Amino acid sequence: MNLPKQVRLVEVGPRDGLQNEQQPISVADKVRLVDDLSAAGLSYIEVGSFVSPKWVPQMAGSELVFAQIKQRPGVTYAGLTPNLKGFEAALQAGVREVAVFAAASEAFSQKNINCSIDESLQRFVPLMDAAKLHDIRVRGYVSCVLGCPYEGAVAPEQVASVARELFAMGCYEVSLGDTIGTGTAGATRRLIEVVGRDIPRDKLAGHFHDTYGQALANVYASLLEGIAVFDSSVAGLGGCPYAKGATGNIATEDVLYLLNGLGIETGIDMEQLIAAGQRICTVLGKQNGSRVARARLAQASA
Amino acid sequence: MNLPKQVRLVEVGPRDGLQNEQQPISVADKVRLVDDLSAAGLSYIEVGSFVSPKWVPQMAGSELVFAQIKQRPGVTYAGLTPNLKGFEAALQAGVREVAVFAAASEAFSQKNINCSIDESLQRFVPLMDAAKLHDIRVRGYVSCVLGCPYEGAVAPEQVASVARELFAMGCYEVSLGDTIGTGTAGATRRLIEVVGRDIPRDKLAGHFHDTYGQALANVYASLLEGIAVFDSSVAGLGGCPYAKGATGNIATEDVLYLLNGLGIETGIDMEQLIAAGQRICTVLGKQNGSRVARARLAQASA
Repeated sequence: MNLPKQVRLVEVGPRDGLQNEQQPISVADKVRLVDDLSAAGLSYIEVGSFVSPKWVPQMAGSELVFAQIKQRPGVTYAGLTPNLKGFEAALQAGVREVAVFAAASEAFSQKNINCSIDESLQRFVPLMDAAKLHDIRVRGYVSCVLGCPYEGAVAPEQVASVARELFAMGCYEVSLGDTIGTGTAGATRRLIEVVGRDIPRDKLAGHFHDTYGQALANVYASLLEGIAVFDSSVAGLGGCPYAKGATGNIATEDVLYLLNGLGIETGIDMEQLIAAGQRICTVLGKQNGSRVARARLAQASA
Repeated sequence: MNLPKQVRLVEVGPRDGLQNEQQPISVADKVRLVDDLSAAGLSYIEVGSFVSPKWVPQMAGSELVFAQIKQRPGVTYAGLTPNLKGFEAALQAGVREVAVFAAASEAFSQKNINCSIDESLQRFVPLMDAAKLHDIRVRGYVSCVLGCPYEGAVAPEQVASVARELFAMGCYEVSLGDTIGTGTAGATRRLIEVVGRDIPRDKLAGHFHDTYGQALANVYASLLEGIAVFDSSVAGLGGCPYAKGATGNIATEDVLYLLNGLGIETGIDMEQLIAAGQRICTVLGKQNGSRVARARLAQASA
């Protein structure tokens, strides 16, 4: 069993996390969160999303967040851009890396972004062209890779087809998202085997939700398959939009604990990370979703 | 990677779980829980503990629980017996399988049961003799196998030594308990490798706590090492006595979800199991600790 020596964690708390928290928070609180995370050693932070605040009020002011964060050298600060308009706004805000997303499930694509998978991919063509022109790196997300809230099971071949398209379009890395957290270790392994036929494994990332408690086992199964990039959310920010009160994004702290235990390098400081997570939970007035953080805080108060 | 085709889950909720819940519940509620669990297909249930109610009020009336449960054929109903006195009480209650426990950490043994590891093992000699005489099977637990709340790290060789003693004394199976949930997948693998030199892997069980969110990854790592018996607690009953408010026992539902996803047989019905867990949580007035149960209940109420 060959585990990677280093893993890159893609911190999605400020975007995927906060976007799915009910209560929008101030630009200052977002800036503080991003700065806390880079100070803790995260080398990749998804800072915000360039979408209409009419649709996603939690992401309003992403351009201000980008303007106000302290940009540390060696850290990638990315913005989610659903279309060319969003990309142009990101460009204007000085963003140097963006992310696009497509669904592996037709029903999810229709319900979530009102178009077919193919149409959504076509929408990215002018965005990818503009990105090339401005030398902006683009990361691709595929959602519903291990199940869809509307269709149920999703075939690995279907995921592979969408991932291949994103990769062929110019995405330098494709993140495979178990949006509803229904996947288990066996399905994760099969998925990587199938998608890995078309895309080198060092160009793939895992994005697991913990709704059914499976996320960390899926991370471990992925590590054993050679995956070395994982998306996670500090303090488990985000919850699950498809099952209220259920767990969503895997907590960065819990993934880091696993990686530290396996002797895999990340460059992240656990104590600073826990402090960053606890601070944003206080702002949101919610319980910390990281079990590592909860255990440490319980010990500290004992 | 050869995964086992079948796994036996040892349900410890009525004992390890309820023992660590603050509020003692009635004999009738305990009987209902055990009967719900056997109806759901659990083939091994740790029903109670034969200790003084002065020390563990939550376990008072274990003999009444044994007398009142509906004993289904093919189901093992076990009682924890810390010493010969407890064993005799269990025998009188008609118990046909008991469990004993020792710690892998000297400090934990001293603080938890007021004697050294060796003394605690010596205490079991008359119990094991009596068990042989009455043809009662004895299962052994080793606690603190991946860390101790007082000593910190615990060497796998130390765990192996205690496990070997229990096995040599006549325990037919030894359950390795990560009592404080600090272990990660790598440490789990090494532990099984070391303990597995002395004891066949089909005589070992894994008992993981989820305090640091690692339990299910540890179960998966154990499955990959050929372990096919796991202790778990319905609805995650029990919490963590060493860090208040932190997560404790891994939830049976969450392990079952993993095993179902891997196509591993258990004979357990998920829906009945979730209903059993939710019922006892209502009795205790606490949130369900199983993420699978929470996700299902959230969906049902959506």
